[in-house]
Amino acid sequence: METMAVHAFDGFPDVRSGDSIPDLVVTCLRDHGFLPVDGDVLVIAHKVVSKAEGAMRNLATVRPGEEARALAEETDKDPRLCQVILEQSRRIVRHRRGLIIAEQRLGFVCANAGIDHSNAGGGDWVVTLPDDPDRSARAVRDAVHAAFGASVGVIINDSHGRAWREGAIGCCIGCAGIAPIHSHIGQVDRHGYVLRTSTEAVADELASAATLLQGQSAEGRPLALIRGAPVEPGEAGAGAIVRPAEKDLFR
Amino acid sequence: METMAVHAFDGFPDVRSGDSIPDLVVTCLRDHGFLPVDGDVLVIAHKVVSKAEGAMRNLATVRPGEEARALAEETDKDPRLCQVILEQSRRIVRHRRGLIIAEQRLGFVCANAGIDHSNAGGGDWVVTLPDDPDRSARAVRDAVHAAFGASVGVIINDSHGRAWREGAIGCCIGCAGIAPIHSHIGQVDRHGYVLRTSTEAVADELASAATLLQGQSAEGRPLALIRGAPVEPGEAGAGAIVRPAEKDLFR
Repeated sequence: METMAVHAFDGFPDVRSGDSIPDLVVTCLRDHGFLPVDGDVLVIAHKVVSKAEGAMRNLATVRPGEEARALAEETDKDPRLCQVILEQSRRIVRHRRGLIIAEQRLGFVCANAGIDHSNAGGGDWVVTLPDDPDRSARAVRDAVHAAFGASVGVIINDSHGRAWREGAIGCCIGCAGIAPIHSHIGQVDRHGYVLRTSTEAVADELASAATLLQGQSAEGRPLALIRGAPVEPGEAGAGAIVRPAEKDLFR
Repeated sequence: METMAVHAFDGFPDVRSGDSIPDLVVTCLRDHGFLPVDGDVLVIAHKVVSKAEGAMRNLATVRPGEEARALAEETDKDPRLCQVILEQSRRIVRHRRGLIIAEQRLGFVCANAGIDHSNAGGGDWVVTLPDDPDRSARAVRDAVHAAFGASVGVIINDSHGRAWREGAIGCCIGCAGIAPIHSHIGQVDRHGYVLRTSTEAVADELASAATLLQGQSAEGRPLALIRGAPVEPGEAGAGAIVRPAEKDLFR
């Protein structure tokens, strides 16, 4: 029997700009008496990373340009929010009343370019995605190695909607220490059939597993640890999960 | 600290047409001395369900029609496989050389309408999706309740590719006993902000968590049990996850 355990920790502090997420992660694990070991995967909700790194905007200070005002008109959204979405995006993939799906500057296709009001601090504050979530993940990996001597994987996750299916799911937007994609090509099934096309986005599946326990609201637990997952070392980063636009039939 | 455990069981037999998946699941749990409890979620790879229910085709017996031959020409795929894909689909959503994305008759949008050669028994055999995966899930739920007195959720899962992102992930295609989608609308964040749009496809996240341990090849473990997941009772079935075509901007 194979077993994988997902733990989500209570007591993660309310994060402010300038806080060190690597330090807070190490402290949280210590406070719970939890010793990470080689092969563990830490999953961190991007919102605390964004806030610590100051990846936030106060809409009260945003002046929407012409393109933002036009997008706001067509979608019934706040023109100031539309301005930030445009600044954070390579392009708008689809829009209609109440909905903007954007290709965020890192390549992730998601609603509002990943910008979110919730847990942003209230008022006109919104949280954007971190500048470089792979770099944020590497900093946590290095701090955990320094503190505990353990080689862990780190995933920064967010909840994204999908084409074709209702409901958001946890997705990997930053990754360090593990390969985000596994290839099963060349593996042999029970009948000797050789798999020819199968790749698995392991980092997204781990991100989803953690999201189940991290929660979305007041009782959020932004830090999770997964033990027993079938991970492989790797340095690709979350960009390996982004399908290049020219290969994508749905952009 | 919240904890969720995912167990994937070894020793599930090689399934043949006519086998009873509910009986095999109960036997597998008993063989491992594993007693399910209320709130556990069993996740079963669709392939064993399909094979037990005879949802298979031998391409040697398939005569491709004109539409299938045209599709095969455009995609470089086996015309007999194309015939089965068309029979299993409402429509072809996109196709190009080497790739067919179809809206399978149950509404799931996936490559080859979910039809797969691997673990199909070798030769020209292919496996299709089960006729009614929600019904298959309910049968397992009822058998587990009869055998152990536990009210469990049951998910039938498959690995599907996505728009925008590389790699397949585990998805729910059949569901019983739990709500596949949770709404966070109306929940309050740490700062009093009320969530307005957030729904979460919990059943897909559970399907992904299980896929990590189920494996794709010879050592496959088609049965997993998840304990400690934040599930809610529900009877909606996996159809609740399918976005209606008329609401979908990517079909």
